[in-house]
Amino acid sequence: MITVSAFNWVPDFAKGLVRDLPVRWALEEAGLSYSAKLIGHPDKDTATYRDWQPFGQVPAFDDGKLRFFESGAIVLYIAEQSPVLLPDDPFQRRRAISWLFAALSTIDPVIRGFHLVEEAPAAREKVSGLLKSRLAALAAVLKNKEYLEDRFTVGDLMMGFVLRSLRDTDLVFGDTVLGPYLARLEARPAFARALSAQLGDFLAEPPV
Amino acid sequence: MITVSAFNWVPDFAKGLVRDLPVRWALEEAGLSYSAKLIGHPDKDTATYRDWQPFGQVPAFDDGKLRFFESGAIVLYIAEQSPVLLPDDPFQRRRAISWLFAALSTIDPVIRGFHLVEEAPAAREKVSGLLKSRLAALAAVLKNKEYLEDRFTVGDLMMGFVLRSLRDTDLVFGDTVLGPYLARLEARPAFARALSAQLGDFLAEPPV
Repeated sequence: MITVSAFNWVPDFAKGLVRDLPVRWALEEAGLSYSAKLIGHPDKDTATYRDWQPFGQVPAFDDGKLRFFESGAIVLYIAEQSPVLLPDDPFQRRRAISWLFAALSTIDPVIRGFHLVEEAPAAREKVSGLLKSRLAALAAVLKNKEYLEDRFTVGDLMMGFVLRSLRDTDLVFGDTVLGPYLARLEARPAFARALSAQLGDFLAEPPV
Repeated sequence: MITVSAFNWVPDFAKGLVRDLPVRWALEEAGLSYSAKLIGHPDKDTATYRDWQPFGQVPAFDDGKLRFFESGAIVLYIAEQSPVLLPDDPFQRRRAISWLFAALSTIDPVIRGFHLVEEAPAAREKVSGLLKSRLAALAAVLKNKEYLEDRFTVGDLMMGFVLRSLRDTDLVFGDTVLGPYLARLEARPAFARALSAQLGDFLAEPPV
């Protein structure tokens, strides 16, 4: 049985953006059932949890055979078990993995920087220019294509998850290529099930 | 023959930190020879180069069989060909990959945020607290250990590369665990050869 750790509550702004989402989504795409191990925020600093996830983050993963952490590593492991997520062809496979890393290393850190400097004008201008150029490069790849490569892969899954952090700006949904791309990814039934599961696992009120 | 793209010149602050370094290091650890395809900064925006690396970054990789990009994806591919970098045991293998992703997704973006807000006090305080807590978690794992797991893996390689971006602060070399850890990694002959190769490939003056 597969177990994935997730928080039992987060503030509204983080709902639908917590990193167990891409793992739940990958499991849904792969047709693998799982259960969420819900933890409270104080739990993340216990020695037991740190032994599972050294930084006290979610998600951590355990399938009875392997026990490890990091959403990127977990999603890659699931993808290796599912042709829906990772093509067999060596070139297509490696391209999909390139996009998985690109989402996490080339796009996500710049989005995080962008949010970080919201109230620091000079830094904001710098990171905003970098973010726009990265998004333009992504849109250039996606022009006239449904997915980053010939078909949906784990690379699109992680790119879609990462782009969701810009959904309150016009940078994605105001773009004629990236907007439809993200909408296409969010329209996948496996995504809807994953999102609904994450949201359904949150308590209505923060635990005392 | 393996080809890796790299810049023919960068400003002093970036020397030894450009992302072809972990790829060169992984190739040296694996005992694989390669040649660097040096590009100038204007070249990175040509259609030809963007076809190889969609964001105009370095490194991009070509071994005659596969042609792809992203330092994390390239390093993982090299590691899959070398027991020096990736253990055969499934658990140890997955742990090493977890650390590879942790370096790129959990540590590196926070370091980049830290540098980004150098002149924005409120944001600096926030990201500096987060960075210190992440580094403390890393130091807790490394206490009484030489490497993140039982032996050196690709996870240490990428973690070492990422921590180098803090070498001008006291956050790593002022720490009794992280300082010796990074020094241990930088003392590896394969690292020295990789660093020397990157530095040796830079022109003395920016090209006109």
